[in-house]
Amino acid sequence: MSDNRFSIKELADLVDGEISGDFNLEISGFAPLETAVRGEVSFLIKSAEVGKLQACEGSAVIVPMDVEEGPVTLIRVENPYLAAAKIHGLLLKKPFVATGVHKMACVADSTVLPKQINMAAFVVVGERVTLGERITLETGVVIGDDVEIGDDTILKANVTIASGCRLGRRVIIYPGCVIGSDGYGYATDNRGFHTKRPQVGVVQIDDDVEIGANSCVDRAAYGVTHIKSGAKIDNLVQIAHNVVVGENSLLVAQVGIAGSCNLGRNVVLGGQAGIADHINLGDGVMVAAQSGIHNDQEPGARIGGSPAIPMKQFMRAAIQYGKLPEMGRDLRRLKKNVADLEAEKEEQATEK
Amino acid sequence: MSDNRFSIKELADLVDGEISGDFNLEISGFAPLETAVRGEVSFLIKSAEVGKLQACEGSAVIVPMDVEEGPVTLIRVENPYLAAAKIHGLLLKKPFVATGVHKMACVADSTVLPKQINMAAFVVVGERVTLGERITLETGVVIGDDVEIGDDTILKANVTIASGCRLGRRVIIYPGCVIGSDGYGYATDNRGFHTKRPQVGVVQIDDDVEIGANSCVDRAAYGVTHIKSGAKIDNLVQIAHNVVVGENSLLVAQVGIAGSCNLGRNVVLGGQAGIADHINLGDGVMVAAQSGIHNDQEPGARIGGSPAIPMKQFMRAAIQYGKLPEMGRDLRRLKKNVADLEAEKEEQATEK
Amino acid sequence: MSDNRFSIKELADLVDGEISGDFNLEISGFAPLETAVRGEVSFLIKSAEVGKLQACEGSAVIVPMDVEEGPVTLIRVENPYLAAAKIHGLLLKKPFVATGVHKMACVADSTVLPKQINMAAFVVVGERVTLGERITLETGVVIGDDVEIGDDTILKANVTIASGCRLGRRVIIYPGCVIGSDGYGYATDNRGFHTKRPQVGVVQIDDDVEIGANSCVDRAAYGVTHIKSGAKIDNLVQIAHNVVVGENSLLVAQVGIAGSCNLGRNVVLGGQAGIADHINLGDGVMVAAQSGIHNDQEPGARIGGSPAIPMKQFMRAAIQYGKLPEMGRDLRRLKKNVADLEAEKEEQATEK
Repeated sequence: MSDNRFSIKELADLVDGEISGDFNLEISGFAPLETAVRGEVSFLIKSAEVGKLQACEGSAVIVPMDVEEGPVTLIRVENPYLAAAKIHGLLLKKPFVATGVHKMACVADSTVLPKQINMAAFVVVGERVTLGERITLETGVVIGDDVEIGDDTILKANVTIASGCRLGRRVIIYPGCVIGSDGYGYATDNRGFHTKRPQVGVVQIDDDVEIGANSCVDRAAYGVTHIKSGAKIDNLVQIAHNVVVGENSLLVAQVGIAGSCNLGRNVVLGGQAGIADHINLGDGVMVAAQSGIHNDQEPGARIGGSPAIPMKQFMRAAIQYGKLPEMGRDLRRLKKNVADLEAEKEEQATEK
Repeated sequence: MSDNRFSIKELADLVDGEISGDFNLEISGFAPLETAVRGEVSFLIKSAEVGKLQACEGSAVIVPMDVEEGPVTLIRVENPYLAAAKIHGLLLKKPFVATGVHKMACVADSTVLPKQINMAAFVVVGERVTLGERITLETGVVIGDDVEIGDDTILKANVTIASGCRLGRRVIIYPGCVIGSDGYGYATDNRGFHTKRPQVGVVQIDDDVEIGANSCVDRAAYGVTHIKSGAKIDNLVQIAHNVVVGENSLLVAQVGIAGSCNLGRNVVLGGQAGIADHINLGDGVMVAAQSGIHNDQEPGARIGGSPAIPMKQFMRAAIQYGKLPEMGRDLRRLKKNVADLEAEKEEQATEK
Repeated sequence: MSDNRFSIKELADLVDGEISGDFNLEISGFAPLETAVRGEVSFLIKSAEVGKLQACEGSAVIVPMDVEEGPVTLIRVENPYLAAAKIHGLLLKKPFVATGVHKMACVADSTVLPKQINMAAFVVVGERVTLGERITLETGVVIGDDVEIGDDTILKANVTIASGCRLGRRVIIYPGCVIGSDGYGYATDNRGFHTKRPQVGVVQIDDDVEIGANSCVDRAAYGVTHIKSGAKIDNLVQIAHNVVVGENSLLVAQVGIAGSCNLGRNVVLGGQAGIADHINLGDGVMVAAQSGIHNDQEPGARIGGSPAIPMKQFMRAAIQYGKLPEMGRDLRRLKKNVADLEAEKEEQATEK
């Protein structure tokens, strides 16, 4: 078993949980309720499903606080989903083992190597790069000149970080991501030819950010495109120049954010949503999948549709949308009926 | 000419076709009707366009069964489009020539090489990888530990296959694809911070699947994200953790499928369509481009719109959508007219 | 300061500008109005904001023609935005310094190297590739057999150019792009199995084209997929087989164009827009973000929505869309009221 080994007490302490059952258990793995075996901890999200504990063959289960006891040892917590993520993460955690620089990697002379690093084959690191400790650079990673990377950051295979960009600590960039490509900016003459506007800014990615596979974050025209700490970005997302993504925001796959948008903290953008340029989204704004946002939004706003409107209104309008053909027929019939009534009234008036 | 050489009989047999004309022809190439020359076979989809055969300078033409004879030799078949694809494929087919492992590729010690392989420069193959025969790994391919790859599979340039993923036989993965990146799963605490949920499953890709350039298939949280045999996936498609894509399904470019969706056989998703998480689509479901699916769909359903509704209803509603401003005006006018009629009626009643 | 040094006269001449102020200035940098310092030129787009010049600490400002004089030296031009792009570009321009072929790059024997080239580590160049002068191939670039690349073209990190594709002069392809992957074409038999249609065409990219990070341009089934001169394509864009993109067209991020579409000159497609296959868009067509185009469009058409309708109509319909629930209620009420009126009329008729 490749997992680590912890006492049930250590696990409960990690998640502010209360133990009900055997305080002397040792846990060495994590598995779903259905497949857990002896030595493994599992989890139950809904206390209504407490009956499922009967068939559990694992040694312990993380449960909601209102489950007080059960046929196995319990770790009772406020948020079982979160506690499960933390405990599972701990059980899987491996110590950093520095493998150093692969003989087929290239590091420029002016870059100073940290004490501990994992640099795989076919990695290139440019001039004057600042590298923290315990960084992992997987195969094919390309790092431009003057980049800064914080401690414990992981760049997966074939990631490109262009010159001057800055990454914080514990950042994870998934395979194929492109950080710091030129922003899309052109000036057009009266014959329709486009001249490139130099893009001289950078990308700054703060601590604990994750960016999914094949996503793109463009460098700023001037200044920074800024992904703030704790933001989690899914695959194939496009973030244009000078965008600011606030702390702990969630951007689901294939989202596109146009230039100079400013997103607050804990904004959630559903998959394939698009934000027009220079839009401000307040803290906690939630945008439904496939929506198109063209207006600033107050903190906490919930919006949907393309163009987007308040979410409740969108849900009602979307239902009515399917009835449009019927509405059209009703309208035509009503117009006819009302015209008939009016004509008759006219006739009566004339008769008088 | 780089193509192969076959008798017309061999080609007709491949596609269950009937020859009308010269049974002794040799064919060494394939070209469209307009550009075909001597020695080449061409094809005609619609029998109504049979007149085009007059100007054909090729040696033979694949035609629908109801074209009985022509000015050139015919291969008469039920499905000329399909027959053309098969015959063209055969004519272009090249024998596998094993070039072995490039001196600037890296294969981990615990991986056993098959007898025949093409491994280009700057490829990395991890520990304990299982490799079938006649596999092609183009430049920059990165294969994680414990991956399994079946016979005759081709991974194009810069493809990443993360650890533990399994690929079947005759699979083609196009450049830049990322298979087995972490699924997008987080648990959020009451201050809004997100904790990563470990993604410990894998991706399984069955025989004859193709996945287009820069597409992403995420590994499962637990278990497998499963692309079943014969599915064909276009470029820039996003497939989230624990999705199942059924046999022979077609996913057009930029489609996004959220976590734990289950697609049946021969499902067709139009370009840029999005499927919300945990949705089941029955066999043969067809989804229009740009649609957004939020509900399970019965086998054979044809749906469109965002949120999606039955396709016929969507097409009628979409037409009516353009008339919404006019409908609004009509409604306002009708309300006025009806109010007038009611007022008058009221007046008459009072008069009486 | 890494920028170049020019006289104000040289800069004004580049942009057909008129100098108002010190004709003897030397300029060595470019910065926004707020941050410019001595020796730097800045720019002002709107003459209404002329007051901002007072606080400018730079040496010169590019302004609209109707700003006649100011507290700093002015370069007066018709189009300050364009002039700024040109002057900034000139100030940043660096002479090409040929670094040659990195010792860890692989060039096939049959490819002749030009006099001047920058080829980074881990680049692979195939057989019979034609290379112009002053080409830059960044780390991880993969170039297939028989590719042609014109003078001064730049391929950024991890770009893949598949066999036979042709690139013009001064082309820039950003990281992770895939040019010349197979088009998505299959023929389906009556059991639902798909046979790949060979994709034997290429991609042709003309002079001065730029293609953004992780975008994909598929090779033609036959003939060429053609991106004409001056077109600028953003990140994560999908261009299918046999598409033609006209001169100076702009394709914003995440646009998808299906097979065999034909776009005229100076077409603008907003972000995430999708074009169905075989559609013709005339010169200067403008498509709103997230639109879906299913019909040919006349030159100059402005369209929006999915499916798209004329832009003005779309904007009015979109506003009305939010009122659909209200419209539904109004309609139901009206039907009731009209039915009442009719019943009463009926009654009156019966009474008579």
